[in-house]
Amino acid sequence: MSANPPRADSSASPQDHLEAFEHLIRRARVAASLTPGQVVSAEMQAPLRRRLERVHPADVAYVLENLPLADRLLVWEQVEADDRGEILLEVSDAVRESLLADMENAEIVAATQELDADEIADLAPDLPREVVQDIIEAQDVEDRAELQAALSYPEGTVGALMDFEVVSIREDVTVEVALRYLRRFDELPGQTDALFIVDREDRLKGLLPLKRLLVSDPDVEVETLHERDPISFSPEDDADEAAEAFDRYDLVSVPVIDADGRVIGRLTVDAVLEYVREKQEAQQLGQVGLREEEDIFASVWDSAKNRGPWLALNLLTAFFASRVVGAFEGSIEKLAALAALMPIVAGIGGNSGNQTTTLIVRSLALGQVSAANARRLLLKEVGIAVLNGVMWGGVLGLVAYGLYRNVALGGVMALAMLLNLMVAALAGIFIPLAMERFGRDPAVGSSVFLTFVTDSMGFFIFLGLATVFLL
Amino acid sequence: MSANPPRADSSASPQDHLEAFEHLIRRARVAASLTPGQVVSAEMQAPLRRRLERVHPADVAYVLENLPLADRLLVWEQVEADDRGEILLEVSDAVRESLLADMENAEIVAATQELDADEIADLAPDLPREVVQDIIEAQDVEDRAELQAALSYPEGTVGALMDFEVVSIREDVTVEVALRYLRRFDELPGQTDALFIVDREDRLKGLLPLKRLLVSDPDVEVETLHERDPISFSPEDDADEAAEAFDRYDLVSVPVIDADGRVIGRLTVDAVLEYVREKQEAQQLGQVGLREEEDIFASVWDSAKNRGPWLALNLLTAFFASRVVGAFEGSIEKLAALAALMPIVAGIGGNSGNQTTTLIVRSLALGQVSAANARRLLLKEVGIAVLNGVMWGGVLGLVAYGLYRNVALGGVMALAMLLNLMVAALAGIFIPLAMERFGRDPAVGSSVFLTFVTDSMGFFIFLGLATVFLL
Repeated sequence: MSANPPRADSSASPQDHLEAFEHLIRRARVAASLTPGQVVSAEMQAPLRRRLERVHPADVAYVLENLPLADRLLVWEQVEADDRGEILLEVSDAVRESLLADMENAEIVAATQELDADEIADLAPDLPREVVQDIIEAQDVEDRAELQAALSYPEGTVGALMDFEVVSIREDVTVEVALRYLRRFDELPGQTDALFIVDREDRLKGLLPLKRLLVSDPDVEVETLHERDPISFSPEDDADEAAEAFDRYDLVSVPVIDADGRVIGRLTVDAVLEYVREKQEAQQLGQVGLREEEDIFASVWDSAKNRGPWLALNLLTAFFASRVVGAFEGSIEKLAALAALMPIVAGIGGNSGNQTTTLIVRSLALGQVSAANARRLLLKEVGIAVLNGVMWGGVLGLVAYGLYRNVALGGVMALAMLLNLMVAALAGIFIPLAMERFGRDPAVGSSVFLTFVTDSMGFFIFLGLATVFLL
Repeated sequence: MSANPPRADSSASPQDHLEAFEHLIRRARVAASLTPGQVVSAEMQAPLRRRLERVHPADVAYVLENLPLADRLLVWEQVEADDRGEILLEVSDAVRESLLADMENAEIVAATQELDADEIADLAPDLPREVVQDIIEAQDVEDRAELQAALSYPEGTVGALMDFEVVSIREDVTVEVALRYLRRFDELPGQTDALFIVDREDRLKGLLPLKRLLVSDPDVEVETLHERDPISFSPEDDADEAAEAFDRYDLVSVPVIDADGRVIGRLTVDAVLEYVREKQEAQQLGQVGLREEEDIFASVWDSAKNRGPWLALNLLTAFFASRVVGAFEGSIEKLAALAALMPIVAGIGGNSGNQTTTLIVRSLALGQVSAANARRLLLKEVGIAVLNGVMWGGVLGLVAYGLYRNVALGGVMALAMLLNLMVAALAGIFIPLAMERFGRDPAVGSSVFLTFVTDSMGFFIFLGLATVFLL
């Protein structure tokens, strides 16, 4: 979100910085070990502080993420109050928590002084409620209005990603005048690739791309240059759709307007890139039931708490599947081969259903699933299931026959595979559609429901058929 | 990659365009059904053609992706040769294949005439070899050199993503002169947020951000304004690391330099955003063994071919696990409860191991796994496994006892859970590390190996312990 250019040391990689800091910390600790009380004094930390001033906040964030807690706090305490806000924005959630836990409320308020309203709003969910109140009260009137607006937009909307660094001009001026107006800024906000053209009421009339402004004759009227009917967003728009538009049209900055067409902010590509990357992370973690990223230096206990609920949920579904098997214990006692073959039927159903689910989730994200083609998708997936079922069911039927010299067992195996693949196709379609319908991210959690269905039904179909036809 | 702004109709959503085209196609087909031979004549297609001229190439791509093959080709044949290249760039791989299959070699060469070297290089892997040769020969000398350079960089490098639309100036000029120089362009390339400052030999000396140029006094020397030692990449640099830098420092365009420091191109944020999104897609699909995105209108047969190899691989691993169970059939005959309980041990091991793998994959991607903390990670994961194993193993041991009133069975269940969770932790760490070591993407495929280990070992540990202690 920050518009600052990298500082002087930008040619060093984040890893280089990490090594440098590890070295400085070691030196400070060795020096401390020689003094009574083994305290790291202010003097010993001076080299750390000097180095911190030369490193980009994003790189400081990387260093903090990769230091064990005690070293992390040693470094953090040397960071200037003015720089702390930006670093808090950059670190991962888990590390942010560890830094905030080390700060007094007043320190947190001070750290946010240099941040823009949209940046404070990004931090707010992680701050104690009373600190957020203090921060709001510490703002002047205009900033306070922006901050309250920024705080009001729910996650996943354009409003939650936008900033307020708008540069706008009127259309009835010349290029010369526009350039003169721009020179009154110290520097334009980062990611400014166009000026927003507005009327007297701040209503968006068009865009003047800098790439066109810069090549234009100074005497030309802005009116003749600008793009009318530009892409714009409302703060309520879905962030995923906005990201799709940035990718599709190669956008850099886009005006955000209210219901009356008035410019209230802008969405920039850096916020979109960060959003896309964070969402990807959240989905990857969510697929295996991790609610948040784990600080790699977190305690075993904290990590276990993060992972526990998922294991508990899976245990419940596994227990249910186990009870399905339990209902057929009589059959298994008579023919133990069933116990050896049943995991294949369940497992392949799960694999195949997960393929279907992944494709449906993708089609949903791209807006490709409509009432018109839902039926087509269903028929196609069932068609593939039948084709795969006949083929792989046939192969496994032969294998089962080869192993146990039992024709009926081979037939049951083949039929069970076919049926469970059809169950998997249906579940693979309906589960993500149902999650979408209920407003949940289908990329997260579809898999656990699907596996529940394919395991339980796989066992039931195979053991049920075996009980009917073999015993 | 394209620098074109959206065309006039940009306020319509891609879905609106799709509906409009579906309507036009239906009308053309109805008109055709009334003529002898039922051919859709040129006249009937005129409305389609007119509409196509007003739609952004990226939206045409969306429309083509969402039409069944016959309709898709009907529309495609109405697209102007000049627009085809850009649309080919935008469509998904599977749809591109269907469009290229419908084109003569000469048409393909014609379609690439309007593309830049880096864009042609993006298409090249999907084109027949002789067509690529024809395209190279159709270029003039300078473009040919660029194209050959672009073709030479392997996927996943900065070189494969960069373009050649560089705007550079010398440092010994004033802002006034720089602005006058820029006015000689018709329009600056898209995503230009800075001018590259070079010496006589084209060696990079610094960057002049437009946001600073625009606010500067015309008489000031460029030299006093520009950023020295800016971030730059080599064409051989890893694209993931470049994406990380774009995210970290909020970059828009970055110079790409050769070993002598000469500017040979630039990397822009739109290319990075597209790369990040495509990589994310590829990983999501790859996790369930889909080698490429499926055209939602692909035939059942083509889809089955795309999904088959993964099912075959999983079948092999499931078969192996099944043979592990087969080795204990004697035990299962004596105590069928084992068959009901064994999937729980295997399944929870798989869930837990996948959590570990996901975190390790993430740490690898962020460059957080070093020799120094590998040991720490290992101890931590094993620690979590022991904690979870004691807790959930205890719960399940009690459940098993409750169900079967057999103390020894409960004990075996608890111990097997504990041991398999430890196996899962070790496998969850070593499998992605080994894949990374062998140059494969650990996000793709780690899961199938992991599940193989946790299933086979889960069955072996549980049934083995049961055989020793219960029978």
